[in-house]
Amino acid sequence: MGLRESLRREKLMKVMDDENLDGYLVVDPVNVSYLTGFQGEDSFLWIGDVGACLLSDTRFEEQIKEECPDIGAAIRCSGQTTLGLLRGAMADSAFSSKAPNRIGIEGASTTVALLNALRGMFPSAEFVARNSDVERLRSIKDETEISEIRQAIDITIRAYRVLRKTATNDMTEVDLRDELEYRMRKEGGDDVSFPSIVAFDARAALPHAIPQRKGQLGDSNMVLIDWGAKRNGYVGDLTRAFLTEKGESLASREYRARFESIFKIVLEAHDKAIEMIKPGASCREIDKVARDVIREAGYGDYYGHGLGHGIGRVVHDYGGFSPSAQGVVEENMIITVEPGIYLPGWGGIRIEDDVLATPDGCEIMSSNLRVDE
Amino acid sequence: MGLRESLRREKLMKVMDDENLDGYLVVDPVNVSYLTGFQGEDSFLWIGDVGACLLSDTRFEEQIKEECPDIGAAIRCSGQTTLGLLRGAMADSAFSSKAPNRIGIEGASTTVALLNALRGMFPSAEFVARNSDVERLRSIKDETEISEIRQAIDITIRAYRVLRKTATNDMTEVDLRDELEYRMRKEGGDDVSFPSIVAFDARAALPHAIPQRKGQLGDSNMVLIDWGAKRNGYVGDLTRAFLTEKGESLASREYRARFESIFKIVLEAHDKAIEMIKPGASCREIDKVARDVIREAGYGDYYGHGLGHGIGRVVHDYGGFSPSAQGVVEENMIITVEPGIYLPGWGGIRIEDDVLATPDGCEIMSSNLRVDE
Repeated sequence: MGLRESLRREKLMKVMDDENLDGYLVVDPVNVSYLTGFQGEDSFLWIGDVGACLLSDTRFEEQIKEECPDIGAAIRCSGQTTLGLLRGAMADSAFSSKAPNRIGIEGASTTVALLNALRGMFPSAEFVARNSDVERLRSIKDETEISEIRQAIDITIRAYRVLRKTATNDMTEVDLRDELEYRMRKEGGDDVSFPSIVAFDARAALPHAIPQRKGQLGDSNMVLIDWGAKRNGYVGDLTRAFLTEKGESLASREYRARFESIFKIVLEAHDKAIEMIKPGASCREIDKVARDVIREAGYGDYYGHGLGHGIGRVVHDYGGFSPSAQGVVEENMIITVEPGIYLPGWGGIRIEDDVLATPDGCEIMSSNLRVDE
Repeated sequence: MGLRESLRREKLMKVMDDENLDGYLVVDPVNVSYLTGFQGEDSFLWIGDVGACLLSDTRFEEQIKEECPDIGAAIRCSGQTTLGLLRGAMADSAFSSKAPNRIGIEGASTTVALLNALRGMFPSAEFVARNSDVERLRSIKDETEISEIRQAIDITIRAYRVLRKTATNDMTEVDLRDELEYRMRKEGGDDVSFPSIVAFDARAALPHAIPQRKGQLGDSNMVLIDWGAKRNGYVGDLTRAFLTEKGESLASREYRARFESIFKIVLEAHDKAIEMIKPGASCREIDKVARDVIREAGYGDYYGHGLGHGIGRVVHDYGGFSPSAQGVVEENMIITVEPGIYLPGWGGIRIEDDVLATPDGCEIMSSNLRVDE
């Protein structure tokens, strides 16, 4: 217990070393959890040059003993403040060999109010806003994390299959969403990764459609579903688009023909991008390959988002494929691939899978669910 | 459409006037929504000295036209940044009569990274970290908001009643949670207000227990449930604790006697606090009345949280009753009252209702659900 977390903290301390930081205050709860194993909230992690201390309160005292017994912890009682605890931790030789004076903070998670309070309490220290130090570590998954995400994806798929079997024509987008989210729980998920998207016909042309209570499955030609289960702190994230009974019928043959031709283009973009994924491949180039397929088919104006994003403890995790992406694929990154074409007033098709970079290529972790299933 | 939001923006502009701010950048999505009617995400609101402009992107273009057609909007295309839009809005005489140089930002929502970017882009402007300006406005509800919260509470109660009728002895905490959350959706909720707490026996002694898959209802003496539905952007938040079939049985008569004696104390704390709630009453005094009941009964060490918090668009909204609370009750505030006693190894009892301050007292909005139901 705690070995993985301790390795992660060592990696962050290496970054601190490289950047001449003699302290780091981690406030993002996902990062605190990643670096300690602690699953609670409202707690900060102080990392000095020689050790780490979790700053929490009495609500979490028992939980800390269970989840991260190997880490130093300072527990705030009624009347104390977290910054008071921090002052103590900074002065404690178990964590810091000397008074820290150059301290890293998470620029994207630390609020201005907190920074002002820190500056008020530690006027002689310099606070350095850092960008994604822990997120970058998080983007490379270890074996346990890969296995957790695999299980989250399995739950994601099983729930979808139950939904497809039990859906009835009188259901609205909201009904389908509620059933799907209930099924993810029943299949072993702790929660959903994000609010599910269920969109009929023209609604599917909005990449972030919120399910509605009007319109029924039986009156629609197509459905787009973007969903994912969360389990043990890790998420899955998939999208499928399919023709309904009505959409498959003779009466809708024009709709069907268009659906199938667009589906083919999106699938080609999806497949060509996945073919390129391997350690060392440029994230921007991978985005471009998919984008070129869609552009050359004449739908460039109908695809307005990036090709994919990292997944892990959160659904939009560090990294991914986009026209502005920096960097290259590294082994054990897990990234979505999700090209789409959205035609206002008609509908939208997106195919999304979760892809793991392996030593010499990649594995589609969600390949158990066919793209047209 | 938009009249309520426009009144709210006027109130914020009054604050700006009082504080000599000639601009305000609102980034908290709940506040953006409160001030505009826009329900999407990733969008900022710029308020100049003469008008307001929503800064968003193409995903939300249609939604903005539907939800807040009366407000200025700047839509970011691919390649543009939100700060680029902000620069345009600040220079636009429709929003600002002159170049703004003292700009309010939300201290608790603006990140250090964003502030640094703002300072880089607008080096001559002063950014003033403000504390809860919009939250304070939000704490006083208008008629429509009260009606929305009433409906959210009704859904919260109906779902609980269905759960109580359908729960079976083989269910775990997780099973009960999943059914309850499903029922809130089925009764008309859009979502849950927060992850529901369902805790058996000793688990109920942890005020923030996460439901487990081990242990069954039939083997437990008591259950504590803390839950709430969200509807149309507003939340309910209730807690009930009750004896199970086993807890009511002869074999458990000692457990039952203790449960009933503690329940009585918590209920007295709950009732005495509610009796005091009216405009002008001190929020700290109201907390103290409940705390004194529990302390005098000898359980002061087993009640470690504040008496209640504001509810509205989020479940932990501005204001509330606690030993450090500032200020007084104002008409049309809605605050929870939720004293509790938590005995490690045994169980915990909390009774939580949602209370509306009326002109000469208060109304328990959740009175339709008996405290022992």
